[in-house]
Amino acid sequence: MAPSAVPLETASALDHLPVKAANKANGQNATNYDLQLKDVETTSLVLRTFRCLIADLCEQFKGGHPGSAMGMAAIGIALWKYVMRYSPENPNFFNRDRFVLSNGHTCLWQYTFMHLVGYKIMTLDQLKSYHSTRTDSICPGHPEIEHEGIEVTTGPLGQGIANAVGLAMATKHLAASYNKPGFDVVSNTTWCMIGDACLQEGVALEAISLAGHWRLDSLVVIYDNNQITCDGSVDLANTEDVNAKMAASGWEVLEVADGNNDVEAIVAALVRARASTSGKPVFVNIKTTIGVGSRVAGDAKAHGAAFGAEEVANIKRAADFDPEKSFVVSDAVYDFFGEVKTRGREFEREWEELVTAYGEEHPDLASEFALRVKGEFTDDWASVIPPKENFPTAPTASRKSAGLVCNPLAARLKTFMVGTADLSPSVNMIWKGKTDFQHPDLRPSCGITGDYTGRYIHWGIREHAMAAISNGLAAFNKGTILPVTSSFFMFYLVSHVRQIPPTWAAVLTGSLSSQYAAPAVRMGALQRLRTIHIATHDSIGTGEDGPTHQPIELAALYRAMPNLLYIRPADSEETAGAFIGALSASDTPSIISLSRQNLTQYPEHSRRDGVARGAYVFIEQADADVTLIGVGSEMGFAVRARDVLREKHGLRARIVSFPCQRLFEGQPREYKAEVLGYRAGIPRVVIEAYAVNGWERYADAGYSMGSFGHSLPGAAAYKYFGYDGDLIAERVSKFVRVVKSEGIESLRGEFRDLNVTEH
Amino acid sequence: MAPSAVPLETASALDHLPVKAANKANGQNATNYDLQLKDVETTSLVLRTFRCLIADLCEQFKGGHPGSAMGMAAIGIALWKYVMRYSPENPNFFNRDRFVLSNGHTCLWQYTFMHLVGYKIMTLDQLKSYHSTRTDSICPGHPEIEHEGIEVTTGPLGQGIANAVGLAMATKHLAASYNKPGFDVVSNTTWCMIGDACLQEGVALEAISLAGHWRLDSLVVIYDNNQITCDGSVDLANTEDVNAKMAASGWEVLEVADGNNDVEAIVAALVRARASTSGKPVFVNIKTTIGVGSRVAGDAKAHGAAFGAEEVANIKRAADFDPEKSFVVSDAVYDFFGEVKTRGREFEREWEELVTAYGEEHPDLASEFALRVKGEFTDDWASVIPPKENFPTAPTASRKSAGLVCNPLAARLKTFMVGTADLSPSVNMIWKGKTDFQHPDLRPSCGITGDYTGRYIHWGIREHAMAAISNGLAAFNKGTILPVTSSFFMFYLVSHVRQIPPTWAAVLTGSLSSQYAAPAVRMGALQRLRTIHIATHDSIGTGEDGPTHQPIELAALYRAMPNLLYIRPADSEETAGAFIGALSASDTPSIISLSRQNLTQYPEHSRRDGVARGAYVFIEQADADVTLIGVGSEMGFAVRARDVLREKHGLRARIVSFPCQRLFEGQPREYKAEVLGYRAGIPRVVIEAYAVNGWERYADAGYSMGSFGHSLPGAAAYKYFGYDGDLIAERVSKFVRVVKSEGIESLRGEFRDLNVTEH
Repeated sequence: MAPSAVPLETASALDHLPVKAANKANGQNATNYDLQLKDVETTSLVLRTFRCLIADLCEQFKGGHPGSAMGMAAIGIALWKYVMRYSPENPNFFNRDRFVLSNGHTCLWQYTFMHLVGYKIMTLDQLKSYHSTRTDSICPGHPEIEHEGIEVTTGPLGQGIANAVGLAMATKHLAASYNKPGFDVVSNTTWCMIGDACLQEGVALEAISLAGHWRLDSLVVIYDNNQITCDGSVDLANTEDVNAKMAASGWEVLEVADGNNDVEAIVAALVRARASTSGKPVFVNIKTTIGVGSRVAGDAKAHGAAFGAEEVANIKRAADFDPEKSFVVSDAVYDFFGEVKTRGREFEREWEELVTAYGEEHPDLASEFALRVKGEFTDDWASVIPPKENFPTAPTASRKSAGLVCNPLAARLKTFMVGTADLSPSVNMIWKGKTDFQHPDLRPSCGITGDYTGRYIHWGIREHAMAAISNGLAAFNKGTILPVTSSFFMFYLVSHVRQIPPTWAAVLTGSLSSQYAAPAVRMGALQRLRTIHIATHDSIGTGEDGPTHQPIELAALYRAMPNLLYIRPADSEETAGAFIGALSASDTPSIISLSRQNLTQYPEHSRRDGVARGAYVFIEQADADVTLIGVGSEMGFAVRARDVLREKHGLRARIVSFPCQRLFEGQPREYKAEVLGYRAGIPRVVIEAYAVNGWERYADAGYSMGSFGHSLPGAAAYKYFGYDGDLIAERVSKFVRVVKSEGIESLRGEFRDLNVTEH
Repeated sequence: MAPSAVPLETASALDHLPVKAANKANGQNATNYDLQLKDVETTSLVLRTFRCLIADLCEQFKGGHPGSAMGMAAIGIALWKYVMRYSPENPNFFNRDRFVLSNGHTCLWQYTFMHLVGYKIMTLDQLKSYHSTRTDSICPGHPEIEHEGIEVTTGPLGQGIANAVGLAMATKHLAASYNKPGFDVVSNTTWCMIGDACLQEGVALEAISLAGHWRLDSLVVIYDNNQITCDGSVDLANTEDVNAKMAASGWEVLEVADGNNDVEAIVAALVRARASTSGKPVFVNIKTTIGVGSRVAGDAKAHGAAFGAEEVANIKRAADFDPEKSFVVSDAVYDFFGEVKTRGREFEREWEELVTAYGEEHPDLASEFALRVKGEFTDDWASVIPPKENFPTAPTASRKSAGLVCNPLAARLKTFMVGTADLSPSVNMIWKGKTDFQHPDLRPSCGITGDYTGRYIHWGIREHAMAAISNGLAAFNKGTILPVTSSFFMFYLVSHVRQIPPTWAAVLTGSLSSQYAAPAVRMGALQRLRTIHIATHDSIGTGEDGPTHQPIELAALYRAMPNLLYIRPADSEETAGAFIGALSASDTPSIISLSRQNLTQYPEHSRRDGVARGAYVFIEQADADVTLIGVGSEMGFAVRARDVLREKHGLRARIVSFPCQRLFEGQPREYKAEVLGYRAGIPRVVIEAYAVNGWERYADAGYSMGSFGHSLPGAAAYKYFGYDGDLIAERVSKFVRVVKSEGIESLRGEFRDLNVTEH
């Protein structure tokens, strides 16, 4: 099953390898520029200039992270000057190498190299805006995707590694899908820089395991091994054998002994990493010294504070620079990087010529490829969404409805890459004829093979990496890939919790994993990356798995999260509306929140265009006494309560369906007033089996959950917590009568909990 | 730095090791009972009985997880009959071995062994309540701590491993603190059962790394290696070399080839694991077959569904049982486990005698130990909380206030175990004279050594494991250990994001890690375990680290989470109140949410007893026009706005301080009405730099955040988002005038956002 550990090799044997030859050995996009290293003196000047500049930039703010940036100077020269294939004048060149700074707090290091190689917007003036109060700064405290040349926003440690795995997957997938002999139209490498901390975070460890499994040999992780974190030396909290762990996870491991100064050894190792024939992702372990060049080199003190004026002067003296002068970059330094722009233009030209020739040889594929490059869908998605009349009218679990909507989309649109955190039988995301994304040589014992063209992803039981890697897939080139993740809703906070039997697939359809994944969902929202998270088993209706699997508080998080659509459809028609909403929101991730259990269908009332507005009148009622707000899986209780109110209590209720708060907030005030009846003088009661937090904006009273759930079969769990049409009607009736007697104005500012016994 | 990989050894060499001798070699609490394995025939009968019983129990519900439970039958016999030290008649016996079922979906396996060995409440009738609608069931779908014999609630995969690491840490710490030569009053082993999935989850990988680092040799993880998950075979998503990875992480690795039937080999491996002299935690990799004994053995179909009546009959026939009879357990099977109770009573008696003798030899230590066993504090915590007059009146960051309150508590009360996810310089949790929790032989390169008596924990950059392991510490014996975690608030969802310089320690004090940790915080709340999470850097005031570090939506999650206190104090006095609240809530975890930046102190207005009530009148005002609700770090804006309203707008404002919604909900209606002025006819505006979701319950309008934050220094970030006393006063004034003109009743049901431009 598992590949045996590879023997560790140091890069020392490569020290004298002519870089140009090694680069050609790579075999991809051979170019005619000369990668011979410049003379030792100039390299030394650049290193010294860079370190003094970092010290100055931190000093002006009296803060920032100088130490790692200084320690990584030689790595930066190797990357930006010699190894990476990119074009500073066209940062979005499609086939560029992707670079991810997972240790995002060292962003000044990246910004400074972007300045030196000639990213037009990255002026010296902009560098000085780091940590300043300038609102026009493109040098925020961590790299942000909004700014040219930044592939993904990083900061939360470990996320960057996972993003890089996604970027490398995208390369593998697009290359397998579009490359033809002689036409490697997708051939870039993904480089990911990490620090000691990244290797401790669980999300990174999950992603590392997946990258090894998929044998993503276009991925190179460069480890700035300086052995210092905030508390002191790394061995205060981590004494594992990192290289052996990486090897056991299916990675090739290279080492560089002197990462502070030996640019040639670093270049040799990185070139070898790109040209690796191991068929594995490569981990380059580079020993550096934090704050090298300062008197606190190798100490935690160099990590996250400015050095102070005196020490900055010392650094400059030691570097043979004038201590009185700041921000000094000589022409020789700019000249050193001068060829990078020229080379970048060549990369672009070569690729464009290649794509042109490709178009002549493979016109159909090339025109599809062109759409993908533009970030457009390969087909009209709207026409693929089933019309209302195609849905079964029998009670249907909304996770099944999601399959009815998503499967044809995934089958038709190559943009879709759909996966699950080991819940295939539960989440209904498999379409007929799907191919798994796998290394083509993989022969799993269950017999399900795949290849890199595959668009169905087995993430294993790794919800957090699933969401974080999906951000990388979406960030490769906006619109080229639309990742769809799936799990139980609860695991979008907590993790895969248990496994649903394959033999239940016909009955159960969905998944529950929104909590373990939450940090990555947030990063997707922050970056405005369109991903769709299929979150099944979304209420206490999940049943006998018990309170660890029953989300209560999670919707409050996602409804409060900016730039995210959290949509809870009530039936198949609304599920179609949820997908339309998610697909229409090109800069927004969505969570579609679905039931495990069967739900009554309301073809006469439910409307996909109502979902698009967030909320809509589901059942109107003349002279209504109360508005019931039904949400998602609990809509059936609202409808049943309405009947009982009429039959037993002589009360008239109208019903509003409310699948998405954020979409509703985008509506005009008049529409909101109409739906919610702001001035109608009747109370509104929301019925949902979650914590009510946030509904107080739209309702006067709530029928909600005030505690965690209980391990009971779904129907029994609902009953146990008072979700029963008769009981709801009784309490609503009592509430309406109190309001009638006390006056509607008595409700202002005192929300009523009709079902909460504890809080 | 890293220990070299240990050579892998199989347990085969132990096959014929006399178990009794091996057990004695352990050297702890030698007992005189006979662990010789019973004859092969009886063992076979027990295995067959157990598997038929599991098949019957799932069949009656037509669901559940029979396959793993059947595959783990022999492991169960080894554990409950031969290896674990516990007392079925007194499940809370203090020095018992702890057992954690990390693959919690196989709970029926644990329940059934608990029945067979004689846990009084675990009757055959109760076993049949598994997955039933019975609300008196003690056999929920995953193990729950509320029920006798269950150490921790599991379900979210991977959490159990982390909990087990915490339980093992507790043993190491208490043993180092209280054992004396000849008096090993704490000497138990922690056993953790895991499945394939647990090894994929990030939280488990973080915890594994820490257990190796701390050399927790009282921890044994038993891997039910059946290579099947929901999607099919494990190698669909995981092909790493697990044993090599564990070895690289500092674990001893043992293997058992036939885990289905070879009870003796399993016993030998487990006994060796407990008696291990490697000084490492032990990973026992046991090969099993899911659903062994059925026709779908080794297939995913055996995993999570009942077999169907026909196959259950087949299983019985193959097991030489009558297919017509169900739930058959012969006397021979009960007799086989008969000695367990007797032995358990002996364990108890031996330990009680030991503790009595210990009390005579070491009376002071013994009386302190007795308090710890009872779960009582060793000192009066209330007297250690500083009085208001001891706090500085100069502006103080509330993370610094937290240090002022917590450091003396931690110094005085041995119950406190305080740690940080690599943010010691930022979170102010180090007290004078603290000792680190470390293996005594560790010699970190930064020179900070420790030992197992230490109560300050360097968690590394592993927020999720920090919170999950803390649950284990708290669960060891309720009240014996109070874990205090610390990080930036954002990392209590997202992760350690960056590192704050040690040299800033005097200025900055606090931490930000609540999102990566969220799943484990939830598990703590679900289990009612008292832990205190110190969450610093809790708003956009965090500043230049940018939006990845600025929590916006996170408070909504924690305010909605049942059984949790989320407390945002406004100054040092309220911070004291927050600790009093957290320490008074013995069954509730708390998050104390603190500022990075300095906050104005309000000794004339702030009251710790006000915090205890959740909200209170901070500044009263006769004939007020408006109530301003100030929260935590943003209280200063409310006070400033009040002044400006009076000076510039001629409006009178009263101020309510509102540090904790859940504590407020527990107050009588009269108190709530008084504080919030339900009927006073004036509007209420909440001022907080978070998403407003949930405040609509208490306010008519909000001055809040409608987007993610921005990378600017703290004061500039506040300004950028409109947090400015003049601007707030201007908008509040306008709002108050609209309300005056439209009438207070116009506010019903239409919450006003005074600062939100997007949503």
